[in-house]
Amino acid sequence: MSLLSETISKLEPLDEDAMQAARERQAQLTKPQGSLGRLEEISIQLAGIRGEPRPRISRPVVITMAGDHGVALQGVSAYPREVTPQMVLNFLHGGAAINVLARHVGARVVVVDMGVASAFEPDADLIDKKIAFGTQDFTQGPAMTREQAHRAVEAGIEVALREIEHGADMLATGDMGIGNTTPSSAIVAAFTGQPVAKVTGRGTGVDDEGLTRKVAAIERALAVNKPDPSNALDVLAKIGGFEIGGLAGLMIGAASRRVPVVIDGFISGAAAMIAYHLAPSVQPYLIAAHRSVEIGHRVMLEHLSLKPLFDLDLRLGEGTGAALGISLCQAACKILDEMATFGEAGVATKDE
Amino acid sequence: MSLLSETISKLEPLDEDAMQAARERQAQLTKPQGSLGRLEEISIQLAGIRGEPRPRISRPVVITMAGDHGVALQGVSAYPREVTPQMVLNFLHGGAAINVLARHVGARVVVVDMGVASAFEPDADLIDKKIAFGTQDFTQGPAMTREQAHRAVEAGIEVALREIEHGADMLATGDMGIGNTTPSSAIVAAFTGQPVAKVTGRGTGVDDEGLTRKVAAIERALAVNKPDPSNALDVLAKIGGFEIGGLAGLMIGAASRRVPVVIDGFISGAAAMIAYHLAPSVQPYLIAAHRSVEIGHRVMLEHLSLKPLFDLDLRLGEGTGAALGISLCQAACKILDEMATFGEAGVATKDE
Repeated sequence: MSLLSETISKLEPLDEDAMQAARERQAQLTKPQGSLGRLEEISIQLAGIRGEPRPRISRPVVITMAGDHGVALQGVSAYPREVTPQMVLNFLHGGAAINVLARHVGARVVVVDMGVASAFEPDADLIDKKIAFGTQDFTQGPAMTREQAHRAVEAGIEVALREIEHGADMLATGDMGIGNTTPSSAIVAAFTGQPVAKVTGRGTGVDDEGLTRKVAAIERALAVNKPDPSNALDVLAKIGGFEIGGLAGLMIGAASRRVPVVIDGFISGAAAMIAYHLAPSVQPYLIAAHRSVEIGHRVMLEHLSLKPLFDLDLRLGEGTGAALGISLCQAACKILDEMATFGEAGVATKDE
Repeated sequence: MSLLSETISKLEPLDEDAMQAARERQAQLTKPQGSLGRLEEISIQLAGIRGEPRPRISRPVVITMAGDHGVALQGVSAYPREVTPQMVLNFLHGGAAINVLARHVGARVVVVDMGVASAFEPDADLIDKKIAFGTQDFTQGPAMTREQAHRAVEAGIEVALREIEHGADMLATGDMGIGNTTPSSAIVAAFTGQPVAKVTGRGTGVDDEGLTRKVAAIERALAVNKPDPSNALDVLAKIGGFEIGGLAGLMIGAASRRVPVVIDGFISGAAAMIAYHLAPSVQPYLIAAHRSVEIGHRVMLEHLSLKPLFDLDLRLGEGTGAALGISLCQAACKILDEMATFGEAGVATKDE
């Protein structure tokens, strides 16, 4: 049995007893019932994920996976491809947005090389899971072999299990990869059947001509590769990316250990689609941090039945939205755990 | 010259030079320009408020003002009136939602008695600015005298100036007062001319009959008192509340010292309307944390040209939404201050 099948076989539904206990406690806390809206919902979901009536999140980890994309050479991005390794180094030096926001919420950042098209000096803070030096150009044929797709997902599972063994009680996803909104849009189109133009945005800020090239490249990729939406590994192999596969595996690995995953924006959403189509029971373990500016993100979230916590017009990736989402999840848990009940505080309840 | 007029005379526009410097720095940071959306906008606004190109928020304070309302005796709330003082004690003991969320974001909570209908034992953590033991029932005549309205606003200014003198560099507003969505809806209706039913919601959770009573009470209050929308003190006196007046003063006081104010939900929004109509130049100093469930809140925010940061279906008040907003403002400042530039990190810029 492969690590992937074994991990999927461990996925369980949320713990209904813990959720019921959390619901009952929420009703006893000194506030009108339901008045903390999404925070209450999230606290109940987290109780079900962790299997604890009053869960706490004390060791959140943001995992940012990097990979390069053959299709980037087709002019689908506003940035040159060397930015991927440059940004990986920026992550390792602590100067990127994800470093700042993770520090702000008290989370550690783990950077994973899933398939950057350049070699790195060994670094204790960089996990090497490189599948290859970038994917192939998916307008000409599959982005990767089926075996590489499988390895990418299993590498993600390994990263999740390692971090959880080291104490992580919440994972948040992030990505870096010049060109990676292109495979992400291709993945939404493949799974939902939506026209490519409806799910393809400007990524890091491509101009009108670039956007036209991007849509054409995705349409060609779908026509050339004919990904089978009933087979998530086929979709990943033909039109995905190494970091997308890794993040999909990360989600499945975390869920198999009852660890919640806060997902970031568009690329993480593409990974969530792969994870969900590999193992639908991963869904309740996912928390969508935000709705991104990318037009295809809305379609993804609907497809996954995930309601984002906020919309701050973000479109950076790296895990930046997910980092902010961690803080809201922690707040939700603290409300459930720390607030006084009506009885404890001697506050009268609702007139009935 | 009264403290109110003197404070209003000190309001200045935002510092354009600091904002320009912040904008230029944002463009140099290692991310696609604009990709952090609202966080970038907020960082620039905060630069303009503080008059510093790279502001930091290190001593945020949530100020929760409490007051009672004569109209509450008309059955407009789902909770009995004794809950107001009980919740004040809950705030002082640290068991309420605002205590939990303020601790989460590292903010101090200051509780102010603006006009609760019961006496409190002296408490170092409770600021006594009591104008009266609750307002009068505004369905019968003015909620307070013009002189009380003036004193309530000035009390709010005093609280702001005291906290700023003690080092606060961001204030966040909160409220407690059984029945206080009723005057808040009345205030929106008075300033915007919207029909009462369109701006009146269920508050803490009143049933259908209660909602009908609430709408009728507000309509009666407007008919009996005829508040003059061109005179904010008249509106406050006739159909407002002591905590609403206090919060309006707090906003003006903070703005006069170039301190940003994160405003909470519906009651804080009513206070912001009073503040804005007393002194329109207070507007750029306000940051709307969230959009509340209360239907009138959307109308308020539009009237004030404020775009909320998030919508988590909150409807608790106390400053809970504002507390979460503090953390986003801090995140915005840290992005501006701590991220590496393209030059520092050796990252290539956009293809041009």
